[in-house]
Amino acid sequence: MSTPKAAPEQLPGTAPKSAAYRNDRNHVFHSWSAQATLDPVVVTGAKGARFWDESGRTWLDFSSQLVNVNVGHQHPKLIAAIQAQAAKLCTVAPYHASEATSEAARLIAEVAPGDLNKVFFTNGGAEAIENALRMARHHTGRHKVLAAYRSYHGATSGANTLTGDPRRWGSEPGMPGVVHFWGPYLYRSAFHATTPAEECERALSHLADVLMMEGPHTVAAIVLETVVGGNGILVPPDGYLQGVRRLCDQHGIVMISDEVMTGFGRCGEWFAVNRWDVTPDLITFAKGVNCGYVPLGGVILSDRIAETFAHRAYPGGLTYSGHPLACAAAVACIHIYREERIFEHARHLGENVIGPALEALQQRHPSVGEVRGLGAFWAIELVRNRKTREPLVPYNASGPANAPMAELVSACKERGVWPFTHFNRMHVVPPLTMTDDEAREGLALIDEVLSLADRHVSG
Amino acid sequence: MSTPKAAPEQLPGTAPKSAAYRNDRNHVFHSWSAQATLDPVVVTGAKGARFWDESGRTWLDFSSQLVNVNVGHQHPKLIAAIQAQAAKLCTVAPYHASEATSEAARLIAEVAPGDLNKVFFTNGGAEAIENALRMARHHTGRHKVLAAYRSYHGATSGANTLTGDPRRWGSEPGMPGVVHFWGPYLYRSAFHATTPAEECERALSHLADVLMMEGPHTVAAIVLETVVGGNGILVPPDGYLQGVRRLCDQHGIVMISDEVMTGFGRCGEWFAVNRWDVTPDLITFAKGVNCGYVPLGGVILSDRIAETFAHRAYPGGLTYSGHPLACAAAVACIHIYREERIFEHARHLGENVIGPALEALQQRHPSVGEVRGLGAFWAIELVRNRKTREPLVPYNASGPANAPMAELVSACKERGVWPFTHFNRMHVVPPLTMTDDEAREGLALIDEVLSLADRHVSG
Repeated sequence: MSTPKAAPEQLPGTAPKSAAYRNDRNHVFHSWSAQATLDPVVVTGAKGARFWDESGRTWLDFSSQLVNVNVGHQHPKLIAAIQAQAAKLCTVAPYHASEATSEAARLIAEVAPGDLNKVFFTNGGAEAIENALRMARHHTGRHKVLAAYRSYHGATSGANTLTGDPRRWGSEPGMPGVVHFWGPYLYRSAFHATTPAEECERALSHLADVLMMEGPHTVAAIVLETVVGGNGILVPPDGYLQGVRRLCDQHGIVMISDEVMTGFGRCGEWFAVNRWDVTPDLITFAKGVNCGYVPLGGVILSDRIAETFAHRAYPGGLTYSGHPLACAAAVACIHIYREERIFEHARHLGENVIGPALEALQQRHPSVGEVRGLGAFWAIELVRNRKTREPLVPYNASGPANAPMAELVSACKERGVWPFTHFNRMHVVPPLTMTDDEAREGLALIDEVLSLADRHVSG
Repeated sequence: MSTPKAAPEQLPGTAPKSAAYRNDRNHVFHSWSAQATLDPVVVTGAKGARFWDESGRTWLDFSSQLVNVNVGHQHPKLIAAIQAQAAKLCTVAPYHASEATSEAARLIAEVAPGDLNKVFFTNGGAEAIENALRMARHHTGRHKVLAAYRSYHGATSGANTLTGDPRRWGSEPGMPGVVHFWGPYLYRSAFHATTPAEECERALSHLADVLMMEGPHTVAAIVLETVVGGNGILVPPDGYLQGVRRLCDQHGIVMISDEVMTGFGRCGEWFAVNRWDVTPDLITFAKGVNCGYVPLGGVILSDRIAETFAHRAYPGGLTYSGHPLACAAAVACIHIYREERIFEHARHLGENVIGPALEALQQRHPSVGEVRGLGAFWAIELVRNRKTREPLVPYNASGPANAPMAELVSACKERGVWPFTHFNRMHVVPPLTMTDDEAREGLALIDEVLSLADRHVSG
């Protein structure tokens, strides 16, 4: 065995820090970051809509971490279920069955739309997308896949290739056969539309044109976030998803709805597609299925696609597929959603608290170009000029170019609200269980902070 | 919300089965399988080296599930640590720090060789490989990657493209830029070698030739399972890994050791590379790091590669990176390995129990072509003819062609031992904590079963 190494030294030039902080800085390599520039908060505890660090600083969580703790932090029933399953059976190979896995699959099939009756479990969203892609390709015998610009589908090679934001760039060239198209986004319409109906019609016409140019018979799948998440809470206009469904039906293309962020109540429904009564062929999920208390994701398959693999081996898998501990957390979480009527509260928050408050912010702050969202899933789009809609910071800005947004983030954190931001937007994505008062408290702090953004407004 | 669907019916033509079984068959889509052909065991409990089903049937686990439960099933200290962390803090976003994450990273860096001091956490092995690849490409500014035939690296698009077995075929074409070469495997030498030293020299010469033809300055990484796992427990001859290290150094190529299966004691050391005193640039891990009690994997980075991302953002990440619950299980697991001297026992099992028993089987059974392994990581390679080395079943056989292996598997399960098989091989990969008596009990049952394989021997 190797000799233990010397203990890490305290970093030069810093105040005394805890062992947890020093070990993080010396040994943890973080996602999506320049490592030397990080100064992470050591989270030591959390409860409901708040979390805190070792010095006792507390934040109201307007991020749900990465939009995953839908039932809030450290929900006692969810913890109890994890502890009970840990005592019973933590892990089995994916070719075995287990009670927790079976029950999680049954419940997910029960809440999924239409004939989406089978569940392939993964560890998270990226693997869910990878497997949905593979299913669609084998089901259709076709290779090409259409995905939207301004999307995020995960960071494994296949999922990353579908991603339509800068997080794809660092992994190119990726999997061949992916074509990007433009989805609806009326505020920055790719189609010069001026009304939701026009945006819907033109976005569908564009998608049909792309299919015509690509050859619809070569296309295995169209992949879409039902409501675009990280890239701006882009709620599709009524009719768009129905139109995509029709195009898929017309050409025998598999419709994959990525509900990793939108599923399990974020939009006030089990799945955001429920809002438009659309049944995709495959749904990918993660995050809200068990709030990330134990890593879990998956694909829900229609009977027709599952049938393709009834007598032909499905060529994909992973060691922790159907992990009992993760699935027991999903079972508990689904019961919590139902028993505590959490989606009703999410809809209430959206309709009566967050939505109206954001509209008021838009009235007050010239830097607010648009507010949009539903359920507990909202965005404030910040601009330098409401007429030109010039974003507060350029697309994919970093360093000095991003200073106006960095300033907002710091100001939020100083005031005790932890924001979720992306490019020129601040998202309001709290736990679905956040109380009205907590939401109002956080929104009032955001109101203060937006005055900083207003200083950049001209014209 | 969608209307609950009707409860699933009992499957026609089957005896009454439990709800867990019916829900599995109706709703769980399993890895790597034709779904209609499955008849899974419902695992209801497990302890140490045994697990059981709802009818009370018990199996001695010679598979460690998918070679992951190194400390055995339901280790009480590991369960207690999971329960304690669940009560404390289950999940935080990957940009935060947490005590469990920091401590897991510190401990992993402590047991990792050389200057491998930073840990990027993922949910499992496939994502670990995906990220190791991305790190190597950005570090070198090169794109091409060399990987071995007869390897498995996971089933996401990038990891699958590296995979050198049939599990790749169903996902092609994958990520561009991967070139496969032949690794050492004396029993079926690609180089017509007759001694380990000759196999080593010729395999290195082949690798150097492939580099020459590919242009070594275009190659970002060489990826190798330190001891090839699923594809046959292929222990490299002494000198091979050192030779790969030299080639990498010579050409500025990143050496990635995939230790997902071999790490954390499976080969009797923290990492199998310790056996040969080789320090790769990146190590990927999963499975044994916390025995899969909570999904976890990751990449351990050398200081030099970590430095590449000190001031340049690393372009990869995932929601559950550094998951506190998973990391707390890793911390507990590493302490268990040390306190219970588990790797010593694994080496003892290999040297004094499994190794000698397999050699005795080879003496007795003409169907045993070769036995090989180390620690708790062994293979029995079955043949129809020791002289021609014709495998008991053809490469990638299924259906009737695979009947001789299927028969062995059934016979093992009937006798109460759960085997791990792949192609024409039976692997002996029990928990590292299996007692000598349990190992002997299982090996005696395998002895009985191998008589079935002997009937296929001719010549």
